[in-house]
Amino acid sequence: MAITISPPRGMRDFLPSEKARRERALGVIRRVYGAHGFDEIETPAMEDIERLHSGLGGENEKLGFSVLKRGLSPAELGTAAASGGVGGLCDLGMRFDLTVPLSRFYASHRGDLPPVFRSLQIAPVWRAERPQKGRYRQFVQCDIDIIGESSQLAETELITATAHVLNALGLDECTIRLNDRRILEGLLRYCGFATERFPSALISLDKLDKIGVQGVVAELSENGPDAAAVLGGILASFESNSADGGVGLTVDEITRLLPDGIDPDAVASLESLAHTLPRLPGGVGLRFDPTLVRGMGYYTGAIFEIAHPASGSSIGGGGRYDGMIGRLVGSDVPAAGFSIGFERIIELVDLDVDDRPEAVVLVHDAFADHPDDGLTVAQLLAIKSALVVTGKRVRIERNRKNLTGLLNRAAVDGFSRYARVTSVTASVDDLSFKTFT
Amino acid sequence: MAITISPPRGMRDFLPSEKARRERALGVIRRVYGAHGFDEIETPAMEDIERLHSGLGGENEKLGFSVLKRGLSPAELGTAAASGGVGGLCDLGMRFDLTVPLSRFYASHRGDLPPVFRSLQIAPVWRAERPQKGRYRQFVQCDIDIIGESSQLAETELITATAHVLNALGLDECTIRLNDRRILEGLLRYCGFATERFPSALISLDKLDKIGVQGVVAELSENGPDAAAVLGGILASFESNSADGGVGLTVDEITRLLPDGIDPDAVASLESLAHTLPRLPGGVGLRFDPTLVRGMGYYTGAIFEIAHPASGSSIGGGGRYDGMIGRLVGSDVPAAGFSIGFERIIELVDLDVDDRPEAVVLVHDAFADHPDDGLTVAQLLAIKSALVVTGKRVRIERNRKNLTGLLNRAAVDGFSRYARVTSVTASVDDLSFKTFT
Repeated sequence: MAITISPPRGMRDFLPSEKARRERALGVIRRVYGAHGFDEIETPAMEDIERLHSGLGGENEKLGFSVLKRGLSPAELGTAAASGGVGGLCDLGMRFDLTVPLSRFYASHRGDLPPVFRSLQIAPVWRAERPQKGRYRQFVQCDIDIIGESSQLAETELITATAHVLNALGLDECTIRLNDRRILEGLLRYCGFATERFPSALISLDKLDKIGVQGVVAELSENGPDAAAVLGGILASFESNSADGGVGLTVDEITRLLPDGIDPDAVASLESLAHTLPRLPGGVGLRFDPTLVRGMGYYTGAIFEIAHPASGSSIGGGGRYDGMIGRLVGSDVPAAGFSIGFERIIELVDLDVDDRPEAVVLVHDAFADHPDDGLTVAQLLAIKSALVVTGKRVRIERNRKNLTGLLNRAAVDGFSRYARVTSVTASVDDLSFKTFT
Repeated sequence: MAITISPPRGMRDFLPSEKARRERALGVIRRVYGAHGFDEIETPAMEDIERLHSGLGGENEKLGFSVLKRGLSPAELGTAAASGGVGGLCDLGMRFDLTVPLSRFYASHRGDLPPVFRSLQIAPVWRAERPQKGRYRQFVQCDIDIIGESSQLAETELITATAHVLNALGLDECTIRLNDRRILEGLLRYCGFATERFPSALISLDKLDKIGVQGVVAELSENGPDAAAVLGGILASFESNSADGGVGLTVDEITRLLPDGIDPDAVASLESLAHTLPRLPGGVGLRFDPTLVRGMGYYTGAIFEIAHPASGSSIGGGGRYDGMIGRLVGSDVPAAGFSIGFERIIELVDLDVDDRPEAVVLVHDAFADHPDDGLTVAQLLAIKSALVVTGKRVRIERNRKNLTGLLNRAAVDGFSRYARVTSVTASVDDLSFKTFT
């Protein structure tokens, strides 16, 4: 037939074993963040398209899926397309992150929330990116955010709780890289970039991992070679002076890496943050990385990113974004957040232990219409229900030539023992369970 | 500002207390269906728009949200709108139910699934309906389906497991109304409807609750008054002969209600189903209702619907749909399913017991920069972490004049005790907890 029998491009189905694995990991994340005082909320998958394209979403705005207005006739569609393009055709869009919806949520419900609101969101987002290994068009994000706390309590709670999550997932080898947007901007000012060039300079600098120092310098030289050359020299010195993309977090260590005189307040603030953080669970490390940018334009203070030795890209990140919520509610509201890239970490975690109840398979013969002629549906169902009541998870399978294949497939879903049910099986006491895994 | 600060029309935000209540109910549903051998799967929120409009979705197809193709220029949008309408502009759509995605999922992964596949799906669907009380444009459905089982084991497992779920949610006063599509068609044939009029006659009959016998007869009389009049007489006799919209489920009781000679095989099959079902948990009742239609055109055998005295409309339903999956995989595959309307039942359930860990609030003073001057962030964070490690859920609140208001708000999210943290609080042993709920 003409229609392909696959999920849409870049989107995935999850079979039972993978779905169970994902839900187990999400359960750990929910539990730990919940213990740290983050309360889960939910927003719709769609938001007004104007809000999604109001500039808060950065580059991700371009990747949004747009939802067609309902009820337009073909002629009206043509008129809408001609006069307004996407904006004329579409009134809604799929969320491409959880930060824009959170801002809208906070603006909608501020009066019903505590003065310092700690939110947890675990939900899919949609981006029309070119699909590639590990990059999908529907994927789950886990975001925690603290709205209304201006002190470093916010950053320390975010980082401590996230380190606890990583530890609970067995991802102890992580390092959290820290920087501060004010240090980055001080650096650009030092190099001679005009303030209006900061956003594009940060976008180039953010590609350092991919295009290297020469690539960054080449990109930035197009609009002023002098500042780009100074920056290039500093980046080269970072490379030779920092191990593993970062150094420690004392004022001395930070200033040793930076040119003289770069925002001492921001440097002191970063040291204070590092000093305030307790020893992180599982030995999660902290490093200063002066080239860490974080893509989004809305960050205003500390920024952080999680690196794991088995992952080429970061597995999470966040920072302080004090200006953003205020744009919606009309007053200053401090905020900071941390987002875990769930699709990245689910590839790293090893959650072998199935915490669901014991799971057994009942293998049965063909059914007879009458008890005298063999096994009946009612008889099998009674056996099954009696096992369910005792707390077991029960799957029914009809006996087949390839019983081993059947059981192997059940083992994938966590089933470990089986018993045969025949016409003479009167109760669960008659069952003889055999282990097959 | 111009953009409204609300979720899109007909869609909802969930604040922490409601989100927690929903997740608790979903946890019960997951656990019970899991025990009955249903394995959870997940499919993307979007499917190919052609599949969504291939006729499997019935009336719901008209309510689908369509997703604009990406990367079209304004000129291309105009051309696409002019030449293809929605089909030219959109390649994807939001799922409007979980049955169409399940069929596609089964066709995609048949080789990796057990011969009899019992699936559980808990996921949002989207329909552009006119919003009204209790009807939303994004809402959660809980579907179980059994694919590959032709015997009545399928219907009995679906009904038993769902009754168990209702019981676990405290919804013991439910009644499950049963009918069979073959009985409905026999009835229409008896009245003199031509086969090609069956679909429209069933659509009218499905409105019986809303428009009454006269309304159904009026609708159907437009295309043939004779058959409509006969049906009207039979419907009137149902009303006078059945209590609570149904009767018992013996062959005698069923045939007493029906005109003579209506599909005795289907009647016997319904009796057999009722006879096979065990006594349902919590005393969930079973009734034959010869006017039960279930909207979807794909049903082929038994159909069922859950009624609850506190809900004006059904809170769930399903049936056998043997032909549908086969259309996708190219061979006959028997199937039956049961769907719970989660938004309906969440309004009925009373889940007061919060099964999360004990939740406490730490109320703290303003922070000082130095330990000698007052409480520090590091000190507070250490106290919090020590409580989290003992298994508590901990929220931090800064002391305010209206402490009672602050605590009352925390109580909504399940917090029950609080303690003050000051500069002299050295460890959790120094905390003095007070109960506030």
